[in-house]
Amino acid sequence: MDTPLIWVVPFSGVLALAVAGYFAWDVLRSPVGTPEMQRVAGLIYVAAVAFIRRQYRTIALLALGGAVLIGAVVYFFEHVEGITSAELAVRTAVAFLVGAVASMLSGIIGMFVAVKSNLRTSAAAQHSIGDALRISLRGGAVSGILVVALSLIGVFVMFLAYNGFGNPSQAPFLIVGFGFGASFVALFAQLGGGIYTKAADLGADLVGKVEAGIPEDDPRNAAVIADLVGDNVGDCAGRGADLFESTAAENIGAMILGVAIYLATQNLAWVLFPLVVRAFGLIASVAGIFVVRGREEGDPMNSLNLGFYITTGLSIVFMALVTNTLLNEKDAWYWFFYAGVVGILTSLAFVYITRYYTSGASRPVREIAEATKTGPATTIISGTAIGFETTAPSVITISVALFLAYSFGARWSEATGFPNGGVYGTAVATMGMLMSAAFILAMDTFGPITDNAAGVVTMARASEEVRNRMDRLDAAGNTTKALTKGYAVASAALAAFLLFSAYLDRVAELTKHPFHTVNLASVNVFIGGLLGAMLVYLFSALAIRAVGRAGSAIIEEVRRQFREHPGIMRGTEEPDYARVVDITTASALRNMIPPGVLAVGAPVLVGILLRAEAEAAMLMVGTMAGVILATVLNNGGGAWDNAKKFIELGELHDDEGRVIGKGTAAHAAAVVGDTVGDPFKDTAGPSLHVLVKLLSTITLVLAPLFV
Amino acid sequence: MDTPLIWVVPFSGVLALAVAGYFAWDVLRSPVGTPEMQRVAGLIYVAAVAFIRRQYRTIALLALGGAVLIGAVVYFFEHVEGITSAELAVRTAVAFLVGAVASMLSGIIGMFVAVKSNLRTSAAAQHSIGDALRISLRGGAVSGILVVALSLIGVFVMFLAYNGFGNPSQAPFLIVGFGFGASFVALFAQLGGGIYTKAADLGADLVGKVEAGIPEDDPRNAAVIADLVGDNVGDCAGRGADLFESTAAENIGAMILGVAIYLATQNLAWVLFPLVVRAFGLIASVAGIFVVRGREEGDPMNSLNLGFYITTGLSIVFMALVTNTLLNEKDAWYWFFYAGVVGILTSLAFVYITRYYTSGASRPVREIAEATKTGPATTIISGTAIGFETTAPSVITISVALFLAYSFGARWSEATGFPNGGVYGTAVATMGMLMSAAFILAMDTFGPITDNAAGVVTMARASEEVRNRMDRLDAAGNTTKALTKGYAVASAALAAFLLFSAYLDRVAELTKHPFHTVNLASVNVFIGGLLGAMLVYLFSALAIRAVGRAGSAIIEEVRRQFREHPGIMRGTEEPDYARVVDITTASALRNMIPPGVLAVGAPVLVGILLRAEAEAAMLMVGTMAGVILATVLNNGGGAWDNAKKFIELGELHDDEGRVIGKGTAAHAAAVVGDTVGDPFKDTAGPSLHVLVKLLSTITLVLAPLFV
Repeated sequence: MDTPLIWVVPFSGVLALAVAGYFAWDVLRSPVGTPEMQRVAGLIYVAAVAFIRRQYRTIALLALGGAVLIGAVVYFFEHVEGITSAELAVRTAVAFLVGAVASMLSGIIGMFVAVKSNLRTSAAAQHSIGDALRISLRGGAVSGILVVALSLIGVFVMFLAYNGFGNPSQAPFLIVGFGFGASFVALFAQLGGGIYTKAADLGADLVGKVEAGIPEDDPRNAAVIADLVGDNVGDCAGRGADLFESTAAENIGAMILGVAIYLATQNLAWVLFPLVVRAFGLIASVAGIFVVRGREEGDPMNSLNLGFYITTGLSIVFMALVTNTLLNEKDAWYWFFYAGVVGILTSLAFVYITRYYTSGASRPVREIAEATKTGPATTIISGTAIGFETTAPSVITISVALFLAYSFGARWSEATGFPNGGVYGTAVATMGMLMSAAFILAMDTFGPITDNAAGVVTMARASEEVRNRMDRLDAAGNTTKALTKGYAVASAALAAFLLFSAYLDRVAELTKHPFHTVNLASVNVFIGGLLGAMLVYLFSALAIRAVGRAGSAIIEEVRRQFREHPGIMRGTEEPDYARVVDITTASALRNMIPPGVLAVGAPVLVGILLRAEAEAAMLMVGTMAGVILATVLNNGGGAWDNAKKFIELGELHDDEGRVIGKGTAAHAAAVVGDTVGDPFKDTAGPSLHVLVKLLSTITLVLAPLFV
Repeated sequence: MDTPLIWVVPFSGVLALAVAGYFAWDVLRSPVGTPEMQRVAGLIYVAAVAFIRRQYRTIALLALGGAVLIGAVVYFFEHVEGITSAELAVRTAVAFLVGAVASMLSGIIGMFVAVKSNLRTSAAAQHSIGDALRISLRGGAVSGILVVALSLIGVFVMFLAYNGFGNPSQAPFLIVGFGFGASFVALFAQLGGGIYTKAADLGADLVGKVEAGIPEDDPRNAAVIADLVGDNVGDCAGRGADLFESTAAENIGAMILGVAIYLATQNLAWVLFPLVVRAFGLIASVAGIFVVRGREEGDPMNSLNLGFYITTGLSIVFMALVTNTLLNEKDAWYWFFYAGVVGILTSLAFVYITRYYTSGASRPVREIAEATKTGPATTIISGTAIGFETTAPSVITISVALFLAYSFGARWSEATGFPNGGVYGTAVATMGMLMSAAFILAMDTFGPITDNAAGVVTMARASEEVRNRMDRLDAAGNTTKALTKGYAVASAALAAFLLFSAYLDRVAELTKHPFHTVNLASVNVFIGGLLGAMLVYLFSALAIRAVGRAGSAIIEEVRRQFREHPGIMRGTEEPDYARVVDITTASALRNMIPPGVLAVGAPVLVGILLRAEAEAAMLMVGTMAGVILATVLNNGGGAWDNAKKFIELGELHDDEGRVIGKGTAAHAAAVVGDTVGDPFKDTAGPSLHVLVKLLSTITLVLAPLFV
């Protein structure tokens, strides 16, 4: 352990646990509100836990099967000097299972904390928006900090366990199974949770708001509890698993790239750099979280932004420290510092891009709001055009960032004579971007917590004043949720090149031949690319259709309850929430399987049939197509959502300057747009992030099958 | 001219002219119907000619500017032995202009014939569906045959003019400008026409059907003439220019690939094969068109299908003849025959795929129709999922076809020892697919003619019986229009590989270095690919938004007329059709510029900044992404369209078996879906076909800038 600064990794882990523990204690000791609030929160808690239990039982079975298959593939196809095939197989399978379990744990933590926090947030909203903000934020922070710390510690421990300090050129390849396990679980967690949350949302909205004409979160709606459960299992548990595997996979990929430079320099720091810089990022994020404070007046977003700027500023300082200390071969460290800054600034750029495209103050949302005046068709057309358009600033930003990070790294290679600086530069940029992961995830989890608390407050028939407070927080939560998705897509895109290079290194390692070329001019490679681009569409089709199907089942059940129990509508009879929860659960779990199997099966099939180079093209073009389609779905959905809010806030006017507000035809059109956007932005889009990462990890782990 | 069978090229040209002349004579001598019909058709004619004149004036100016720029690029950057730079520049610029003029001519022919035919079709519908079918079909055939013959003769004449028989290894490179000129015009023609037609459609539907509650094509709607004009300028003129450039570009690309084998075999036939096989295809198509006959009873589609099968069967026979005669090096011709059959069968496969996804009898359309029961939001969600899903069978079919065609060609190389068989195999498959181009285009133009005739009949207040006849023909026309789009996308995808290879050959020729590798693992190449994928989305965003904008302008004008002239609604006052036509024209022309400039400018910029290899990736990944997105837009739009028709035909039922028909909420939701689908399938989708081809020709011509 003679690498300087490596002690920061365990230190930041302990710090993170302590801070998360403190926040958790702070949240749990807060008052729990009125009995009615507790009753509603209790219903949500029971249903959410039941879903997670059933879902994770299914996922655990799938993961066990996956581990056996992976072990078999490694046993029969991979041969590494100095290790028996059996040991290699067991190590890879164990890494897979550890990654899977850690990812499940992340999901469970995210969900559990959120469910506990939302009740306390609604209780606090009874007297102060500041307290409500503090609690919801700290609840989100527990989850954000723990998930990122778990991913950091998980990779570190696996590295130690597989003798990384003794044999650093092999250990990173041995722990890729960890990343694959994490992706595997994240895929099903995000799919199942995403389908659950949007099916319930769709069902609740269509029968409640549209057919029965009752407001959102009205207790007479039998689907309302399922809807609230959805926020926890989809937005919290799903996103937690997603970011867990993102950080883990990119960390491991960067370590693999570090091996090549380690072999040239004999300096272990090149392999350990990703761990160290992430540890510092965790510290910067914790600092940023501490800065955020709620005030009774003003936009809660201002405080959140300040926290993010603090995290960003600290990240830049830490990046200088770490590159200067670890990557200082021949005094040329600053090239990598520049690359790291590029990554950090990229995350900032995406915050602005996402905000521009999804905020009511800007042109795109206004354009959609104007289009609602001519009905749902023009609303959809306009939102689609906006969604398509958002790919331009996103892709151009990513392209510039990649180009700069690679160029800086290449200049380092020129200056020092060591190889692989360019691609390592992109890895440093990716790690720079991920430094703020804990902060971003904390903000993200804050979103569903406030969303849920707003629901609890409404269900518990709290006063108008309390509901207004929660609505303000909820609006901020919607923004942070959109920002996180932009961040997740951007990091996936930036990481694509590094993970792809790691795959090439891995194939070269397996075949003992250099592998630097994926030639699009070869027909198999072209076909592999074409199939990769197709995969993301077919996958999204299955995910979106799943929401439609599950939503229809919910609609029928709620209609049946209204029909057979007229007392529900009069408020004299309580609807059967549990039955809707059961239907949603069963439907989400059934429908997460086909897209999940497709995502895992397609790359395996293409790799076996068309071999390693075509598989690389599938990975690469699939990643490009996936990142771009996710951008379209996330931002289009977000813009529709906020166009609806824009109208609800009374900011749309007709030619004579009269407000066009709730209850108008324009508002109804906006609701259609919002409903269409829901499965785009909360099911298909986030699932695509996971798919893209899964493509990377699956190809890394199963490469022996394709060479 | 010692290549056997080459006489077929001029022969088929003369034959095509004779047949087209006969059909035109037959159409023009048909009765022109009631004075009211003539009046309506006259309004359409005047407005369509005015639009085409203004549009082509703009395009001509753009093309002149383009020719000067291209000449300058060639003059300063390209150097070919035995030709002065000035002569080379003039030749390329002239080829560009000839291609541009020929493409404009195709558009004008398509539009002119359609406008003349629709009046005579409506007149014939007064007494017989058979006559109406014959006239509309022959009108379509005039356009289909002339466009394809023009493209064939154009390439042949340019080849002769640039001394192809004397210097066959250089001539194909000299005439790539012809393909670029054609693409350039097609791009703006399709964009302008596509925006015009769907903006008018959108405006007419939203104000007429939705707001005022009057039926489609009601003469009280001021936008109705613009809507009918749109069918002619968008569907006829645009598609004519599109298929003209498709066939020309793919023909030239295949000739370039033939050069490599010519150099090895010294057999000119490898360069001339594409011309000869297309000439035979034209003959097969004419035969197929002659077979189609209308009968008073039965589905008109049956007769159309029979014609297509005849064309396909003859194409296979001709393919055997041509490959056996021209490509019979060492008796191994049959490998290329197989490759050609693969192409021919691919066109058949796409007919089935498109029919499955857009026909009311099949699962996807029924699924959307069911979704209309829960409103517009689920209708959109369901249709989006279907649109995404259609990429799977399409891409898998293309992948299999490419793989087989390449493998057959590679086996030929093995058998004979000559190079480049694999990629030539994909060229043969593409040419095989294009053999039926004239038949397909005839069927396609039949669509807007019947659509227009149905409009004329309604506007002229013809009897219920006449209108029913036209509705039956119109339904068949919708199907053929959808099939053509599937065909256009498939041929673009199949041709992508050959055009891409032609680009590599061209760069190799320019640099005198072999260029066989486009390495996705290089960062610039990755960025080029990413930008290519982004380009198709941004381009589509601009095209879709243009429809929305122009549509809004129309809506406001029609509303104004209703408001200021209450007599219009009572039927005592005639609306001001001309003003709506003017507004639509101006708006379409203004809005076609940004996407057009983007499509031309982006590849030039990327090529200059990131150089030839990254440009290749932009071309390739852009093509993949474009083909896939076009599939989504075309098929999604087609499925929505037919889900609406499914409901209007009374085939949707509620749980108790009662028909849910016109005027229900479900039908209103279906109309929303149809309206959303319109700019997808008739503006953005077809424009993407052209964009994809333009990427190929622009990179071919401007390659000297990028090396």
